[in-house]
Amino acid sequence: MAEIFPVVFLPSGRRGEFAAGTPLLEAARQLGVDIDSVCGGRGLCGRCQIHCMTGNFPKHNMTASIDHLSAFTETERRFEERKGALSAGRRLSCHALIEGPLLIDVPPESQVHRQVVRKSAVARDIDLDLDFHLHFVTVSAATLDEGGSDLSRLKQALADQWGLENLTYDTSVLAQIHAALVEGEGDVTAAIFRGDPQPRIGAVWPGLVDHVYGIAMDIGSTTVALHLTDLTTGEVVVSNGAMNPQIRFGEDLMSRVSYVLMHPEGTAEMTSEIRSTVNQLITEAAAEAGIETGHIIEMAVAGNPIMHHLFLGIDPSPLGSAPFELAIDQAVIMPARELGLKICPGGRLYLPPCIAGHVGADTTSVILSEQPYKSEVITLIVDIGTNAEIVLGNQHKLLACSSPTGPAFEGAQLSCGQRATAGAIERVRIDRVTLGVRYRVIGSELWSDDPDFAESVADLSITGICGSGIIEAIAEMYLAGVLTADGVIRAALAETSDRVIPDGRTFAFELISGEIPVRITQNDVRQIQLAKAALYAGVKLLMDRFPVETIDRIKIAGAFGSNIDVKYAMVLGLIPDCGLDQVVSVGNAASTGVRIALLNAAARAELESVVQNVEKIETATEADFQQYFVDAMAIPHKTDPFSQLFQVVEKPAEVRAASTSGSRGGRRGRRKRTD
Amino acid sequence: MAEIFPVVFLPSGRRGEFAAGTPLLEAARQLGVDIDSVCGGRGLCGRCQIHCMTGNFPKHNMTASIDHLSAFTETERRFEERKGALSAGRRLSCHALIEGPLLIDVPPESQVHRQVVRKSAVARDIDLDLDFHLHFVTVSAATLDEGGSDLSRLKQALADQWGLENLTYDTSVLAQIHAALVEGEGDVTAAIFRGDPQPRIGAVWPGLVDHVYGIAMDIGSTTVALHLTDLTTGEVVVSNGAMNPQIRFGEDLMSRVSYVLMHPEGTAEMTSEIRSTVNQLITEAAAEAGIETGHIIEMAVAGNPIMHHLFLGIDPSPLGSAPFELAIDQAVIMPARELGLKICPGGRLYLPPCIAGHVGADTTSVILSEQPYKSEVITLIVDIGTNAEIVLGNQHKLLACSSPTGPAFEGAQLSCGQRATAGAIERVRIDRVTLGVRYRVIGSELWSDDPDFAESVADLSITGICGSGIIEAIAEMYLAGVLTADGVIRAALAETSDRVIPDGRTFAFELISGEIPVRITQNDVRQIQLAKAALYAGVKLLMDRFPVETIDRIKIAGAFGSNIDVKYAMVLGLIPDCGLDQVVSVGNAASTGVRIALLNAAARAELESVVQNVEKIETATEADFQQYFVDAMAIPHKTDPFSQLFQVVEKPAEVRAASTSGSRGGRRGRRKRTD
Repeated sequence: MAEIFPVVFLPSGRRGEFAAGTPLLEAARQLGVDIDSVCGGRGLCGRCQIHCMTGNFPKHNMTASIDHLSAFTETERRFEERKGALSAGRRLSCHALIEGPLLIDVPPESQVHRQVVRKSAVARDIDLDLDFHLHFVTVSAATLDEGGSDLSRLKQALADQWGLENLTYDTSVLAQIHAALVEGEGDVTAAIFRGDPQPRIGAVWPGLVDHVYGIAMDIGSTTVALHLTDLTTGEVVVSNGAMNPQIRFGEDLMSRVSYVLMHPEGTAEMTSEIRSTVNQLITEAAAEAGIETGHIIEMAVAGNPIMHHLFLGIDPSPLGSAPFELAIDQAVIMPARELGLKICPGGRLYLPPCIAGHVGADTTSVILSEQPYKSEVITLIVDIGTNAEIVLGNQHKLLACSSPTGPAFEGAQLSCGQRATAGAIERVRIDRVTLGVRYRVIGSELWSDDPDFAESVADLSITGICGSGIIEAIAEMYLAGVLTADGVIRAALAETSDRVIPDGRTFAFELISGEIPVRITQNDVRQIQLAKAALYAGVKLLMDRFPVETIDRIKIAGAFGSNIDVKYAMVLGLIPDCGLDQVVSVGNAASTGVRIALLNAAARAELESVVQNVEKIETATEADFQQYFVDAMAIPHKTDPFSQLFQVVEKPAEVRAASTSGSRGGRRGRRKRTD
Repeated sequence: MAEIFPVVFLPSGRRGEFAAGTPLLEAARQLGVDIDSVCGGRGLCGRCQIHCMTGNFPKHNMTASIDHLSAFTETERRFEERKGALSAGRRLSCHALIEGPLLIDVPPESQVHRQVVRKSAVARDIDLDLDFHLHFVTVSAATLDEGGSDLSRLKQALADQWGLENLTYDTSVLAQIHAALVEGEGDVTAAIFRGDPQPRIGAVWPGLVDHVYGIAMDIGSTTVALHLTDLTTGEVVVSNGAMNPQIRFGEDLMSRVSYVLMHPEGTAEMTSEIRSTVNQLITEAAAEAGIETGHIIEMAVAGNPIMHHLFLGIDPSPLGSAPFELAIDQAVIMPARELGLKICPGGRLYLPPCIAGHVGADTTSVILSEQPYKSEVITLIVDIGTNAEIVLGNQHKLLACSSPTGPAFEGAQLSCGQRATAGAIERVRIDRVTLGVRYRVIGSELWSDDPDFAESVADLSITGICGSGIIEAIAEMYLAGVLTADGVIRAALAETSDRVIPDGRTFAFELISGEIPVRITQNDVRQIQLAKAALYAGVKLLMDRFPVETIDRIKIAGAFGSNIDVKYAMVLGLIPDCGLDQVVSVGNAASTGVRIALLNAAARAELESVVQNVEKIETATEADFQQYFVDAMAIPHKTDPFSQLFQVVEKPAEVRAASTSGSRGGRRGRRKRTD
């Protein structure tokens, strides 16, 4: 009889007794310890690396040593030749045999369910819980006597070598197996998707494949963003983006629906356009990463309901009028090739669930990212794009709506507006007395009054102002007394300041003069007022319906949210009162959510369960929404906390005299717009 | 309490007691009586019609009467208006309520699992056992308050109105539901496919759809045949066929494999060609039948392994050389749209299993059609196309092989050969003394010596001879002494008959002289010898391997088999000895088999189970096959039963003198070919 030794695995602390000569990987398997392996114990993939501790460990009641493992093998030496030396204490657990008491640490990169730090502005961990696994197998050669087929021999090998029984297959693998067997000389890697009742062979590649990829994508009305992700590590390898080509059919959602209503082939046209762009982005990203598109085997895609339907080839026109009926609200999982997506033919596409006609897979992705359903704290999430997606609630209740802010926050439809790209004004300060302007532009770290500013922007062309810039400009105009609470540029100031200049029958405020002047016109102010009123009215509606009087925490998502100074958002009344330290920008939360959906099958299930209980509020048909919208047009007069945050200056005497005399007693007393 | 009455259903004889007022359909359901219904009891589809018997029925211990049903309803009257009057005693069982003792006959057309007589040369019944069912539902209108989606409302309606729970869906229905709901004003018909664990919504159409269609198809190397079938009745509605467009890549299978080996895109090219042709045939057939292709929801396709692989887009080149490895041997079921087939987007494609590299879904379809596995009798089935598929065995054991006969039996590669179309010579008689020729052509019922023959073929152009014609011609040439047992045209006869004429260094026999002469050349005889030797050698190999000395029954399948006179096939030695009354032509058995697979899910399962035990014999690498082939080149000298069937004439004296003097002692003593 072989001697028996204790073995403890960390971090799980699982412990067992094993006969001398047992491979460590085998011991781990028996204890249910989470160690990865793709090559099936052949010392090829290196995924099963462990760290062997040496010393006396009273807590575990053992004296452990790396010498209690069998000698370093020729296979491990060959692995080091190919992939680089193993660090001290490291062994391939498939080749190290137990020969004494052992304390084994399984490093995170060897765990199947490891955590990954994502590369983005807001660092957060995403657990890997993929719904497939890679299996390397050696398939016996076909003979005349045996009969059968390539598929049956592959299935037999997967059964013999990995204990995988009862497998079904994606039809696309039929065209792959033979070539893979020939090229790999019998060695192939199969991707096996989880499945109930039958797991499924989704792809077969020649030789050992230990890195495969996924794509997380957010299809917005205006832009499409794609993240090519290494599913082995969870890391984003390449990010890529493009304009949504459907823009030529209409800038906003409703004009695209109108296009469909007026063109019988409209859905097919727009579906074809977006899928082409997505394929182009996939091809480019794969080329940049130096990988084959055939190694991309999962995709997760977020988008508002109209983008979601058009991507799937479903007529979106029912979403354009009451009752705003979705074709499907549950999550969609399907072969990606059904949409003609050029990834691995057996690869899968996942779309998170939608909630209602205006509350789609983009909003549910935000919910997955920010998880308001896990906290007691009442959280407001606003995701600002061409529409604002708004979610309010906590672990007991969640409400959601979508509010038509239009594209002003993205810099569109403004006289000097532009996207948030290099050369756009993004920060503005206006002197309370002189009305002198300081600003910063994207691409320079310096303010415009810095002596080195001119040099720092020498290569940039300053041509306009982006969404976050105009919010600051309008808030500063208000704080400097240029703007009334109703959003009117004070005409009287034209007499004392050359920055306030006539513009047709109204006035404009000039930020930059010269050849390409940048001005905020009265109409620009109106556009921002309309947008912020829509946003605030949506928030107010959700607060009413919850019902709740105050918000504990506010999360601003989206590119706009990443750039904005939240103080200014509060000055303008985009968001309700909340302690400033409780207002955070969470970056592109829809993208984060869809990345989580890509990497974590359990999170998908959790989301699908959570959204069943999200209450949707339909802004388009709520009478209250119209009233809140009108009420929210004005710029709120707040003494607190803004008096502490901003220098409150005396307004010029003329201006004070010219100002309207009505009551402005805080939020409740906000005046209706009368012009 | 309501009164209770006995009700008996025929033909099942099931009996139950029911409260007055119970609808007949409901009573049938409770007893498990097989009555169809698509509209769910609304009196729309008329599928649930029953015949009510009147009289005294001692066997059932009742006096029954149609008056024991409730009065004819307004709904039934409207049904008669739309679909024509119900015959006497007929009622819609969904609307007739029990009001007394009843004896109810369920006519075949109202049974879900009814039998259908197929329209073809060989009449046989096919049971209907479809793997889907149609359900008519009324879906509630969407409202703003309810939320949900078109899909969720449809699922709810199917649950409420048909008790269908736990449904999944084909992704294609997402694009169908809304339009169907609008067009049908909430009334739609859903096709629900059986599924384990979840049945699946495969299609949604507006309004009531009570006829849907399927396609049974046989893809041969040379021709493609399609049968558009009404799945409600099982009847073939339209048959359609075309040449296999892959012919331009090579006439026979091996030249197509060679094409793939020499052209990297060869598989894709040939796959694209055949799918285009199939779509063309589908479109034409649907147009001829006056139906929408969207109402075609199932397809079953047979073909040899190379046709099977190319149709699926799988590289067939491994099938071209040992070990002749299939990509897949099990049956394939997949969405038809994955192959770009233009039927209902959620429709399914079924391909019967293959057995080995040369024994494919065509052979297994023949097995399903002829069911040799159900009998004690040892049956030989030969399906003659460009290859001959051969099956031998009984309920205890089945063997199968494929033998490369080449296209000579189809009239190809012969000097005057042609397809079996109008104007082709199909019957030949040669006078034993004068060598005078009588013949018949396709398109006329008369022999050429009939006074009215010339008139009957006035519209035909007699340009050649088809496969069955050349078999008769060569057999008659042998019987008339024109041909030696070695297949040599006797040169000496040229001196006494102007029908035997020089043809280069050999001689030809002229069937028709004139402007377009039809002659059998020495090379034509050689081609037929090669083909029949290949066929016979395959049969012999299977008999050896079984092992069995004699065959109980022979079935000849394929178009060639339908036309051939089996006596002549025996004269030439195409098939082994067997009582002539036990040799039958079974028509296009592969097409019959694939029609069974289309209509009967249980038959599919049975076939898949049977083929697992079919032993494949590989002719290409069996040394014995080569020997049998060489041995089978000669024309067998048989005294029995042919002496009784054919007039045995004295050969001309010269011929007797010129004949070779070697032994011809029957089949065992067949001489090797020496020329």
